[in-house]
Amino acid sequence: MKPTPVKLFDFSFSGASYKARLALSLLELTVEFESIDLMAWETRSDYFISKNPVAQIPLLELSDGTLLRESNAILTWLTEGTPLMPTNSVERAQVFQWMFFESSNIDKNLGRCRFMETYPDWKKMLPPGHLEMCAYLGEEALKVLDEHLRSKQYLVGERYTSADISVFAYVHCSEEGGFKLGDYPNVKAWCERVKDRPGHIPIDYQPY
Amino acid sequence: MKPTPVKLFDFSFSGASYKARLALSLLELTVEFESIDLMAWETRSDYFISKNPVAQIPLLELSDGTLLRESNAILTWLTEGTPLMPTNSVERAQVFQWMFFESSNIDKNLGRCRFMETYPDWKKMLPPGHLEMCAYLGEEALKVLDEHLRSKQYLVGERYTSADISVFAYVHCSEEGGFKLGDYPNVKAWCERVKDRPGHIPIDYQPY
Repeated sequence: MKPTPVKLFDFSFSGASYKARLALSLLELTVEFESIDLMAWETRSDYFISKNPVAQIPLLELSDGTLLRESNAILTWLTEGTPLMPTNSVERAQVFQWMFFESSNIDKNLGRCRFMETYPDWKKMLPPGHLEMCAYLGEEALKVLDEHLRSKQYLVGERYTSADISVFAYVHCSEEGGFKLGDYPNVKAWCERVKDRPGHIPIDYQPY
Repeated sequence: MKPTPVKLFDFSFSGASYKARLALSLLELTVEFESIDLMAWETRSDYFISKNPVAQIPLLELSDGTLLRESNAILTWLTEGTPLMPTNSVERAQVFQWMFFESSNIDKNLGRCRFMETYPDWKKMLPPGHLEMCAYLGEEALKVLDEHLRSKQYLVGERYTSADISVFAYVHCSEEGGFKLGDYPNVKAWCERVKDRPGHIPIDYQPY
């Protein structure tokens, strides 16, 4: 029998955690939440490292004791077998394509810029020029998305899927990292469609 | 009906392309290959950008015309429904966990160091300190892997899966990027196990 999700270790500011929180809300699943304060280095505590050696949130605890990490793997777990994950093999492949694109091109660039602009003390620890490179690559990622969404309502198969949740998490709040969504009208319109979905919650919604 | 893989656009040096080539070999699948020379900027040609706007290899063409990008999504597509992808829901989640870890922590760090050490002209284009950061984060990723493999033969469920293929691609050749696998004996032993699998091919094996 498939275990059930029991507890999400997360942090309200984290876009990666938001992927899981948003999927839980859309699927009307109730879990326990435990906040792990990134800024207070709590992801590096002995307590948390013993649960997740990669020292990252979100982390999802399942009813069989499994501790599942990586936001996109958690999202895949939560949405598999629901209308948020297609059953058609090509559409499934495309959902994974966008989730891996998110992992390497969105999270690492848009997400990092937002984090560093919000917490300037952390920004000082980066090598010079690093954030400028992330900003450049982030714009490239937004261009790809904007072109893809030119004639599409959602990323895959004209239906709202796990790919949209994943990509939306750091794209919709990317202006906090210095990006201008007005430059990407198709992305902006898609963000509005996602926000209008039944069960949608904003990134700063605290379920606990 | 599920389409079949028809053609792989790849480049022999590319560890990302190797994930797809290795899976094709293990599964005894035959496809057409087209080399896209990264170093000659061929991923940026109009011809290739029209096929993959993200300008990355590998790219897999399917029999229905679909052009599938992102090496880990291609790997998922190829291995789904084969013994390389578990059917148990928790093991599947763990396979995705390691593939997303690979995407963000291995490819971006070990892969980048290998590329830049091999092609010093490209290294000069990076911001100062960037490669040192990748090297530090790469060591962190190898530590996580080494600890995980301390008591395990393979990454997930004690069987060779798509997660091993994904992580192996850039880990086994990471010494070309300045890492020392001798410092990670469990990772080194696991690399040897992967190399001993029936159907294994080395990264520089040219199927065309």
